[in-house]
Amino acid sequence: MQATSVVHRHFLGGDAPTFSSLRPKPIPTTTTSFAIRMSLREDAPSLAVVGVTGAVGQEFLSVLSDRSFPYRSIKMLASKRSAGKKLTFEDNEYVVEELTADSFNGVNIALFSAGGSISKEFGPIAANCGSVVVDNSSAFRMDDGVPLVIPEVNPDAMSHIKLGSGKGALIANPNCSTIICLMAVTPLHQRSKVLRMVVSTYQAASGAGAAAMEELELQTREVLKGKKPTCKIFKQQYAFNLFSHNAPVLSNGYNEEEMKLVKETRKIWNDKDVKVTATCIRVPVMRAHAESVNLQFANPLDEDEAREILKKAPGVVVIDDRVVNNFPTPLEVSNKDDVAVGRIRRDVSQDGNYGLDIFICGDQIRKGAALNAVQIAEMLL
Amino acid sequence: MQATSVVHRHFLGGDAPTFSSLRPKPIPTTTTSFAIRMSLREDAPSLAVVGVTGAVGQEFLSVLSDRSFPYRSIKMLASKRSAGKKLTFEDNEYVVEELTADSFNGVNIALFSAGGSISKEFGPIAANCGSVVVDNSSAFRMDDGVPLVIPEVNPDAMSHIKLGSGKGALIANPNCSTIICLMAVTPLHQRSKVLRMVVSTYQAASGAGAAAMEELELQTREVLKGKKPTCKIFKQQYAFNLFSHNAPVLSNGYNEEEMKLVKETRKIWNDKDVKVTATCIRVPVMRAHAESVNLQFANPLDEDEAREILKKAPGVVVIDDRVVNNFPTPLEVSNKDDVAVGRIRRDVSQDGNYGLDIFICGDQIRKGAALNAVQIAEMLL
Repeated sequence: MQATSVVHRHFLGGDAPTFSSLRPKPIPTTTTSFAIRMSLREDAPSLAVVGVTGAVGQEFLSVLSDRSFPYRSIKMLASKRSAGKKLTFEDNEYVVEELTADSFNGVNIALFSAGGSISKEFGPIAANCGSVVVDNSSAFRMDDGVPLVIPEVNPDAMSHIKLGSGKGALIANPNCSTIICLMAVTPLHQRSKVLRMVVSTYQAASGAGAAAMEELELQTREVLKGKKPTCKIFKQQYAFNLFSHNAPVLSNGYNEEEMKLVKETRKIWNDKDVKVTATCIRVPVMRAHAESVNLQFANPLDEDEAREILKKAPGVVVIDDRVVNNFPTPLEVSNKDDVAVGRIRRDVSQDGNYGLDIFICGDQIRKGAALNAVQIAEMLL
Repeated sequence: MQATSVVHRHFLGGDAPTFSSLRPKPIPTTTTSFAIRMSLREDAPSLAVVGVTGAVGQEFLSVLSDRSFPYRSIKMLASKRSAGKKLTFEDNEYVVEELTADSFNGVNIALFSAGGSISKEFGPIAANCGSVVVDNSSAFRMDDGVPLVIPEVNPDAMSHIKLGSGKGALIANPNCSTIICLMAVTPLHQRSKVLRMVVSTYQAASGAGAAAMEELELQTREVLKGKKPTCKIFKQQYAFNLFSHNAPVLSNGYNEEEMKLVKETRKIWNDKDVKVTATCIRVPVMRAHAESVNLQFANPLDEDEAREILKKAPGVVVIDDRVVNNFPTPLEVSNKDDVAVGRIRRDVSQDGNYGLDIFICGDQIRKGAALNAVQIAEMLL
């Protein structure tokens, strides 16, 4: 069947996002002094955001606000370097505080995105203080006893963790590529078990942080002027180029980013037998990842049924118009919550309906990081 | 084994190509009158270049010159629109002539790159005039009796075609993605039969012609200034974005570019059973394609042996340094003849040594089009 279906949910339609809107929102600074928020909800949890000045940290605040996440108080935590900066959040002004071992007293939920080493040091401290930590780093993802959660996929993995029990806990946010991939693949997997998955990624600058996004922009301006590009974050030209993901390469030849897809999929699906291989590539795109995914199923699943399943899947939008060649793009999903999937077709290299090829795009900072973490926090309420 | 091998053949090392060098070379124009080349070789074939003003047409001339291709005369042919333009080639001046049915009298070898409809109309006319046509379009690729040739891969397919026999012929140049893929995969296939191949491409602007390269540059300048990007060649923003290949989508859900990889591989390998699937994506890169390729073999082939095979393969360079994360990039292969391959590793999703993942980059205009065609012409000499 010729697929002509296009589902334009709330997030689609209208012009593409402007270039400047792709950047992490700068922290609104203020010269007025610290003020207490008048609209605090006494019955709501007290929050802390660790790494609040980073790209994901800033997106944590956007998402909390967009989703009207209730809170009694919120602590803005960062490194000593950023301490003292002032920022405005929901009409209240805050001073960024230095992250220390004492930061978590009275904190119910701590959202961490300050890199693996900060999480390793301060995550357990926060949990020992009774905070439930939702950690965006890879520090604890593969640890037994730490749930690795995509709320639409495996909410039950964290059902034993309760706020207000006085007991702290660690919950890990999966890697961005894993979240975006499994948002689209899991609904199919629930219908017909996925035996093997071959993933090739097209990853945005944002995965390497705000400075990498700035470097891509700077390099592009330089290259267009015929200048040698500035290479600080990446060791090579990124503008008008692409390269194998910059994560360290392991002894099996996979880089760490690729092995996250392999291992996290097994843990999230609680399926140690699922076969996954991945090739992760950095492309000169600002903030949304794309993934080409080839699937091998245990039982037949035809493309029409797959499309119908995906249309109904929470957090997923289908963009799959073959007639006008309209499929997901990173730009279209930028700043959006939903993961977009298209190019849904029977794999001609497999027998019958045992294989599908699909193409997925998702905002790396939002569903790939901050949104997923805030959704985890919402499940605690 | 930790791979630390880096083979830097002639084409590697030194600075990355400058941005301006990535563009198709503009035709050197001249105000002096048409002149006869003094160094003509009377024993050499007379050539014609059809579509000489296009990106690939210009590259035909560069490659002919770089490789000191011998010729008695050379006709510069293009559409009526370009007829009358003057250009300099190897210190001689030429006037671009309008392509007509009379263009091929006395022409021994005609290199075509003017689109499929021009090839369909004028290819058979040229062949009937006794010319051997090397056609870069898709017009005849799948026709029985028309060899589809990558000289390093299947030279024998054209061994029955002789210059000077008085009989014309058509020879097809494969699609750029197919050439780049099979340059790296065939040497492995010759050692252990490839049963199945899953390809995801990262394709440059050049595949859509010089105007697409200009549009990518223009759009990037516009987007950086906060302007709405000009979309003429592609219907959507290309700068800092990527999208499913713009080729028409067929009823099976694959686009034509993807099906070329599927069908051309079968024909070039003369193996109707090889299973291929592909997802073709356009990325904001100027002139070299990249491909993530997952391979499934009939017999075990370990990664060390694969690497050794590829190091010895003609027209292939291995860039595979895991320690310093140095792998092929489109920028590095731009303006170069060789196809680069790296990220050579055992596929962890397959048993034993029956699978490999590799990453390939090749210049789309050069080996993906003009160089391969000129190499075919060389085999006629």
